[in-house]
Amino acid sequence: MSALLERIAAVVGPHGLITDEATLEPFLIDWRKRYIGRALAMVKPASTNEVAEVVRLCAAERTAMVPQGGNTGLAGGATPDASGTQIILSLSRMNRVRGIDPLNNTLTVEAGCTLVAVQEAARTADRLFPLSLAAEGSCEIGGNLSTNAGGTAVLRYGTARELTLGLEVVLASGEVWNGLRGLRKDNTGYDLKHLFIGAEGTLGIITAAVLKLFPLPRGWATGIVGLDSPESALALLSHARERFGERLTSVELFSDFCLDLVLRHFAESRAPLRARHPFYVLIELADSHPSEHVRQQLEDGLAAALEASLVRDAVIATSEAQTRAVWALRESISDAQAREGKNIKHDVSLPASALAEFIAVTGTALERAYPGVRVVCFGHLGDGNLHYNISSPVGVDADAFLANQETINRIVHDRVVHFHGSISAEHGVGQLRRDEILRYKPPIEMELMRKVKAALDPLGIMNPGKLIARMNQL
Amino acid sequence: MSALLERIAAVVGPHGLITDEATLEPFLIDWRKRYIGRALAMVKPASTNEVAEVVRLCAAERTAMVPQGGNTGLAGGATPDASGTQIILSLSRMNRVRGIDPLNNTLTVEAGCTLVAVQEAARTADRLFPLSLAAEGSCEIGGNLSTNAGGTAVLRYGTARELTLGLEVVLASGEVWNGLRGLRKDNTGYDLKHLFIGAEGTLGIITAAVLKLFPLPRGWATGIVGLDSPESALALLSHARERFGERLTSVELFSDFCLDLVLRHFAESRAPLRARHPFYVLIELADSHPSEHVRQQLEDGLAAALEASLVRDAVIATSEAQTRAVWALRESISDAQAREGKNIKHDVSLPASALAEFIAVTGTALERAYPGVRVVCFGHLGDGNLHYNISSPVGVDADAFLANQETINRIVHDRVVHFHGSISAEHGVGQLRRDEILRYKPPIEMELMRKVKAALDPLGIMNPGKLIARMNQL
Repeated sequence: MSALLERIAAVVGPHGLITDEATLEPFLIDWRKRYIGRALAMVKPASTNEVAEVVRLCAAERTAMVPQGGNTGLAGGATPDASGTQIILSLSRMNRVRGIDPLNNTLTVEAGCTLVAVQEAARTADRLFPLSLAAEGSCEIGGNLSTNAGGTAVLRYGTARELTLGLEVVLASGEVWNGLRGLRKDNTGYDLKHLFIGAEGTLGIITAAVLKLFPLPRGWATGIVGLDSPESALALLSHARERFGERLTSVELFSDFCLDLVLRHFAESRAPLRARHPFYVLIELADSHPSEHVRQQLEDGLAAALEASLVRDAVIATSEAQTRAVWALRESISDAQAREGKNIKHDVSLPASALAEFIAVTGTALERAYPGVRVVCFGHLGDGNLHYNISSPVGVDADAFLANQETINRIVHDRVVHFHGSISAEHGVGQLRRDEILRYKPPIEMELMRKVKAALDPLGIMNPGKLIARMNQL
Repeated sequence: MSALLERIAAVVGPHGLITDEATLEPFLIDWRKRYIGRALAMVKPASTNEVAEVVRLCAAERTAMVPQGGNTGLAGGATPDASGTQIILSLSRMNRVRGIDPLNNTLTVEAGCTLVAVQEAARTADRLFPLSLAAEGSCEIGGNLSTNAGGTAVLRYGTARELTLGLEVVLASGEVWNGLRGLRKDNTGYDLKHLFIGAEGTLGIITAAVLKLFPLPRGWATGIVGLDSPESALALLSHARERFGERLTSVELFSDFCLDLVLRHFAESRAPLRARHPFYVLIELADSHPSEHVRQQLEDGLAAALEASLVRDAVIATSEAQTRAVWALRESISDAQAREGKNIKHDVSLPASALAEFIAVTGTALERAYPGVRVVCFGHLGDGNLHYNISSPVGVDADAFLANQETINRIVHDRVVHFHGSISAEHGVGQLRRDEILRYKPPIEMELMRKVKAALDPLGIMNPGKLIARMNQL
């Protein structure tokens, strides 16, 4: 063992240092299995002080660190590079709930708490922590914050960034910044937490956070509607915002081809409406009133939408089982398309006013370039966020079709940027989009990012090669 | 005229350069008349390009710039220093609404738009821009963003920071960063807008912004309750959040002494309830439903609070005139205390769970140090934000009492920090709290702030001496 690892072992103890190859293996590869790296070791500190001590030891040797939470990221942000010289810094042992303050509606947790554990801690105090996403059982809150995670309740409650009041961060120097404030207002200087949220571990290591809590809703209503087009879906969104205000929690869009895939690959699934429609929107309300009341509101609102010909058909779930079935349709799309074969994924956002035209124009361009190509278009309509994935034409081998990834990314992302959108709405940059953002971001913005990176991590040891091109590549 | 001013005049034209002393005078003094400075000139660019050109010219000569909006700040952040070498950079001529996108719920405005003009632009598109504060007729949105303004609707809609999606900023180099995005989700790198929001012009000059809009509420209800204590007020806040969810727009607290001052100095004002109570809370709901409906909800909720003995008495405004009268009580407190004589002001925030104890402990400490001292305690309870101002004991000259400011600040702010609060909740740092934050912020946090400052404004020409101690003073 190297002298560095010996010194680290003395800090983190026998449970805190993993060098055994077999044990390391799952942590060297990302969730989608697109990136495989090597590592000197995985270090698992059990406290903020241990993290700080490890960072100081690594900084002294110029050894790079790759922070890792639940390792569920979709952009390769937590996978070490191939050099074998980096250390994976796992926060998983730091999984305590440090405190809950129901009167202040705040929860203080360590980075290694799973998202589900955070949600549950809130619920035990009769409060809601609204961040929710598919990986919630295994992703960790430190990763959620470092990637500014989104999910299905952003429309109402915001992204991980907006749910954070304070942070504790181990800086690149090994110093600890205790910014664990539980305040709604604090104008005593630069709001430094925003530097670390969404920075993917490139500026420091988030070790704990103060999160916002909300009253637990008492009633819910979930419906699904069939529509003509994305234009209609956007008109419905406007109608729903106007009518339901902040009761509106989720507005999720998917195309008929998405439904097709789900019905084909999940035998237990059923089409939600009598007829088929080009697009569907799942709409959910939650309120401090009982469910009967909320359902009545949704019913009245959708009746008005039907009358105004915004939607072609609508149904409201009247039982827990029906609600689950409706959500299962939406949540099975990712798995269904995976069962259909590999595809080329995009996670984009657009101004709502450009969304319909983007879908039309991009679909046309893809069809012209690849006749028969199948677009898996779904996402968080309320946030302008589409998961716009491309499957091969019927009869074309899915694996072979992946060779067109570069060209297809260009077709999709050029149009996203033309319409003033983002090429990574919620998944982040990591390794996946690191070089691509150089193409699309204004150079002055990259320069600002580099200045911030150089100021906070002058040695370039915090997750190098992620999000921002390595300093020595500039 | 100096060569620099001649070059600037060539950029901004005859309307854009003011050197005449009489015309300059009102811009050399802050709103509260605590800070008086001098200036080389006031420059009023009419476009982003003109701002950029002016910054480049100033940077070349190392001439410092003090950005100024409506000059309504309460911390001296927009007042030049006494050297007479600084330039006031007024954004007031940049007052165009660049665009409104109702479907995307965004509004793009230039920094010099007054807050009222922004609110009105939103309303013409049947939308709400919820930021609202006393100075809204004259403050400008660029200043609101640079100071992360708060106000009366933060509980529901957040501060200026949370209402901003994108920025256009002229950097210290004179380069323009166009970050005018209207996206709810964008994870393509560091979220740089948060560096400039609340930075009081020390990192760059905000020239335009994309702001979030909301549906216009259709119904309102306003009530006022009398309570025993801050503890009861906090219990009511919990009850109201639980019961009303996001309909809850404002929860404002004031003590009986505040009411006393208003009744004494405003002949037309009336006590809102039959009896007097130690504390009052103004509570306002807004919803997409008609006012009758919202009032019924408020009535039911306050009836339950009465039954649970959370409140001693309650009344709901049943007309527009009554609503205005209730708000007038709350909004007259600042003027009433000014008419009573000068006082020592604090703008603090605390975790809700510490607020009642803070009020008790601090009141006792002040009374012990200055028997008979009168505390003007009011504020945005829903945000944990108190304007905790100190008037002289009856019979003690108010001006003379101001000599105790330093000691009284210490008594109040030491306790704020003891309870993990902030010594500047919404007013900012400016000159007023610049040295005081050095006492209370962790040194590592000041160091991070200085690193950011040095990275973005290496010449130290952006509003030097505000928010962060001058680089050469370090």
